[in-house]
Amino acid sequence: MNESPLVNPEVVGMVGDWKGYVEAKLGFRNHWYPVRFSREITEGALEVVQLMGEKLLLKRIDGKVYAMRDRCLHRGVPLSRKPDCYTKDTITCWYHGYTYRFQTGELVNILAVPESRLCGRRKIVTYPCQEAKGLIFVFMGDEDQVHDLKKDVPPGFLDDDLMVLGKHRVVQSNWRLGAENGFDALHIFIHKDSTLRHFRDFNFPIGHTPLEGAITVVEDEDGPKGVEDDFAKHTPVWDGVIDGETVVRGPRLAQVKGTSASVGTSIWLPGVLKVNSFPVPGITQFEWYVPLDETTHLYVQTLGQTCTTDDERTEFANKFETHWKPHGLDGFNADDIWAREVTEPFYADDYGWVDEMLCEPDSSILEWRRLASRHGRGIQSKQDLR
Amino acid sequence: MNESPLVNPEVVGMVGDWKGYVEAKLGFRNHWYPVRFSREITEGALEVVQLMGEKLLLKRIDGKVYAMRDRCLHRGVPLSRKPDCYTKDTITCWYHGYTYRFQTGELVNILAVPESRLCGRRKIVTYPCQEAKGLIFVFMGDEDQVHDLKKDVPPGFLDDDLMVLGKHRVVQSNWRLGAENGFDALHIFIHKDSTLRHFRDFNFPIGHTPLEGAITVVEDEDGPKGVEDDFAKHTPVWDGVIDGETVVRGPRLAQVKGTSASVGTSIWLPGVLKVNSFPVPGITQFEWYVPLDETTHLYVQTLGQTCTTDDERTEFANKFETHWKPHGLDGFNADDIWAREVTEPFYADDYGWVDEMLCEPDSSILEWRRLASRHGRGIQSKQDLR
Amino acid sequence: MNESPLVNPEVVGMVGDWKGYVEAKLGFRNHWYPVRFSREITEGALEVVQLMGEKLLLKRIDGKVYAMRDRCLHRGVPLSRKPDCYTKDTITCWYHGYTYRFQTGELVNILAVPESRLCGRRKIVTYPCQEAKGLIFVFMGDEDQVHDLKKDVPPGFLDDDLMVLGKHRVVQSNWRLGAENGFDALHIFIHKDSTLRHFRDFNFPIGHTPLEGAITVVEDEDGPKGVEDDFAKHTPVWDGVIDGETVVRGPRLAQVKGTSASVGTSIWLPGVLKVNSFPVPGITQFEWYVPLDETTHLYVQTLGQTCTTDDERTEFANKFETHWKPHGLDGFNADDIWAREVTEPFYADDYGWVDEMLCEPDSSILEWRRLASRHGRGIQSKQDLR
Repeated sequence: MNESPLVNPEVVGMVGDWKGYVEAKLGFRNHWYPVRFSREITEGALEVVQLMGEKLLLKRIDGKVYAMRDRCLHRGVPLSRKPDCYTKDTITCWYHGYTYRFQTGELVNILAVPESRLCGRRKIVTYPCQEAKGLIFVFMGDEDQVHDLKKDVPPGFLDDDLMVLGKHRVVQSNWRLGAENGFDALHIFIHKDSTLRHFRDFNFPIGHTPLEGAITVVEDEDGPKGVEDDFAKHTPVWDGVIDGETVVRGPRLAQVKGTSASVGTSIWLPGVLKVNSFPVPGITQFEWYVPLDETTHLYVQTLGQTCTTDDERTEFANKFETHWKPHGLDGFNADDIWAREVTEPFYADDYGWVDEMLCEPDSSILEWRRLASRHGRGIQSKQDLR
Repeated sequence: MNESPLVNPEVVGMVGDWKGYVEAKLGFRNHWYPVRFSREITEGALEVVQLMGEKLLLKRIDGKVYAMRDRCLHRGVPLSRKPDCYTKDTITCWYHGYTYRFQTGELVNILAVPESRLCGRRKIVTYPCQEAKGLIFVFMGDEDQVHDLKKDVPPGFLDDDLMVLGKHRVVQSNWRLGAENGFDALHIFIHKDSTLRHFRDFNFPIGHTPLEGAITVVEDEDGPKGVEDDFAKHTPVWDGVIDGETVVRGPRLAQVKGTSASVGTSIWLPGVLKVNSFPVPGITQFEWYVPLDETTHLYVQTLGQTCTTDDERTEFANKFETHWKPHGLDGFNADDIWAREVTEPFYADDYGWVDEMLCEPDSSILEWRRLASRHGRGIQSKQDLR
Repeated sequence: MNESPLVNPEVVGMVGDWKGYVEAKLGFRNHWYPVRFSREITEGALEVVQLMGEKLLLKRIDGKVYAMRDRCLHRGVPLSRKPDCYTKDTITCWYHGYTYRFQTGELVNILAVPESRLCGRRKIVTYPCQEAKGLIFVFMGDEDQVHDLKKDVPPGFLDDDLMVLGKHRVVQSNWRLGAENGFDALHIFIHKDSTLRHFRDFNFPIGHTPLEGAITVVEDEDGPKGVEDDFAKHTPVWDGVIDGETVVRGPRLAQVKGTSASVGTSIWLPGVLKVNSFPVPGITQFEWYVPLDETTHLYVQTLGQTCTTDDERTEFANKFETHWKPHGLDGFNADDIWAREVTEPFYADDYGWVDEMLCEPDSSILEWRRLASRHGRGIQSKQDLR
């Protein structure tokens, strides 16, 4: 709508080489996003999800999941308001009988106007779906733009023996504040009182600054595009000093090697973080910040561990439920969630992107903004919502 | 206000010969609208009603009802916030004593400034009122534009022996979605499970398509302007078919004549529907969609039956309370109400008028939009609200 | 933000010599405003207050109160969300360790990036504070603009022997509707049923009109700028008459001298009222309408009485708690509060300033608007909020 653009044009004009990132308030189009776990969508059930400002219907038919816009072409009502599914692979609008096929979006009939010239000649928008590692991914874009899923997930996520478990929840902030909170090497400061410490001996500096060579930009043509931050090439800071007095000190245990709880993080398009060796060595945390609308995102939190036997899988599942979910994904990450939500108002009118005052270690975040602007395959716009 | 026009100008520029209808988001000015039943406004009581974005005070004085804008000229406060009615036909502003006469709106005095040059020289806006068939109608427009009430109600409504009973309620949608829901011949699909069926044997197709000659545009100079749809000239559709399989079937009873529960409908300016032979032959449903503001309307539902004796009147009143109100106006029409409310978001930013995808039987709705654009006597604008 | 200016430009263009007043929707910058009573801010405690659209942190350090913007320079989060005060005179941002000194706003350190070039070179906004008569005043403006407090309070308020007591509460209206409600000589009409009458014999006309010479504009260079209204030079109106009939009569007691409950009022920049001899002779009411944001103000209500002995002070304090607070500041002024809140919607979109219809005694209000436009030292703008 021309009266109220999605992003303040004055701000867009000021941000230089991360313009695309600032414009992508509703996320980047033509990428794969996880929306639910596979176990959540059972055969025949209908689920409504939001994604990048759109409402979608998900349905599993003969084992395969399909995604279709939840809005009748006729008068724009949500089909899900009173779902009339007369056959397995169609849904009929409760208002006037417009009937669509899930697999294609095709308007197959208008029950009360079977001779309408519209039948067979109009389609509702559908999006490709794919399942991997127990997650349902939706490709939010045009079918002729579909890329391999492997180009939209972090390296290693699709490895054969990796077992992935997780949860998701809605966070009241734009997705970019989620991504930047996760990748930000300095934000370790907010976790200093986390109860996760009871479950693992940490070396936990109050911050760490990247040295030359810590940050690597990955943009090979055939793989995912991302920015890696290697904590082994950081200078850890153990003491916080004010006016010459040490006021806070990060725990440093002689028997623990390394400078941080993790050994490094990386962030990948379209907005997914990989945390190596976290919450413990041997486990990797993968988490997505999926745009729901301008001010909320779905925080999809997963942990992956290589398991080759049933015993290993059972052990990992037990440990996930009793340790890593309650104390990691729920407890430790709760700090991140409120940090994002408290940051939201400053960026809500877009001026935050020009009024912020970043410091030296934030250069990794700037690399991410630039990379995303270069490689994002499209911007979700208000036009896409109509 | 020039910053935020009532209707998106981009949309107004795209809708051609139903431009006026799209602009009339707050309704058409210079028409009669029912706002309450006569029995609801008793002598001396003060009632606040909303109409086309304005707040009005209604008061019955010596039997006659008057309508005045509920806003003091001085500092814009609502007089109704603390009504000081020191004499029968005046109201005094609680804040500074500005005193107005209901019949004329004249500022007759400022109690603490009796010598003010404003006294006798300023008027608050008033609107003509008229009662008919137990309803109070307000003419929302300029006094020199007043037309006969008979030009703003459906044919037959004012007939001498017609007894009219009804109710009203607030619906959370723009008034036009109410009008189009009512006149729409296809929307019968949503009533297929109505409990009204327990009280009458229906022939109830799932839809019907107008044949040549079903739609008549009525625009005689001296009468009401409307569009009539004669269901006798429709092709009923009894079976809903998907992929060759009949999935839903409308009940068709050998002993019942006709192709539908009603024999026809018509819609009239400024937004009132007439449903012939409904809920049973011998009764006519008249219903208004009165604009309250941009996103709500007052749904005034009435039934009319010719009664010439007291016994007939008593019988109709009984039947109305025990049958037609609970099962028709409450039960059957509840489907219509939620349909309108669910449609509202798609049209709320005006883009729905250009993004909708109408089908062939909707041509009757297009006739109505064009007729209303041609014959509406004025558009309620934001200026009218100041 | 250029898309939505603070005040409608169409209105600003129409109001002539009180343009500045209309623009000052968030108040006038470079003035002193009371925000709390001294007793409310104890040593070491942290208080968050809102003022002219900004959030401020107040802290008392070694007896002196300091005010600093409650927003980290880095990513714009409120420091108060989880206050980390490691030393007496600093606050550290909970998110990334940015550490500020209260007295100067200086960024003294970033705990995890002690070598950052930002340290010592950036400042958060601070505002001068001063205490007087048990109130904490904040100078909302630039340090090089600071004026003497005595230029921003009514004459007499700082007198040596004046003892001041009071309370404050949030009112849901713009601050200007507070100021005009207080200074408006006609609004006495709303107090006609006040219970304060049980505690004092009033002469209480229903209104009074200023005669020649009642209104004095005070704009000496070295003192406060204001408008005085002397009730001794008013014509009181005792009887309200409609159509020749007296419908309301103000009480007039033979044994009481004077024409009103008060002997006069005056209004001063930046928005503070002085009511002489109120609620009883010997006491003066001083009240501020402090802008919180566009639609709310802090109503700071105080009473001042000359006291030279401890007995007098104790007596005044007792009387304040048992009489003047419950029946004056709470009871009598409650009428004013709801009047302002009911007036707010008419002025909220700014059109009220051109659509109002003032009468002759409102000339005193117009003098105030013009004076404020001439002498206000700056307009708080949306830019000031970033």
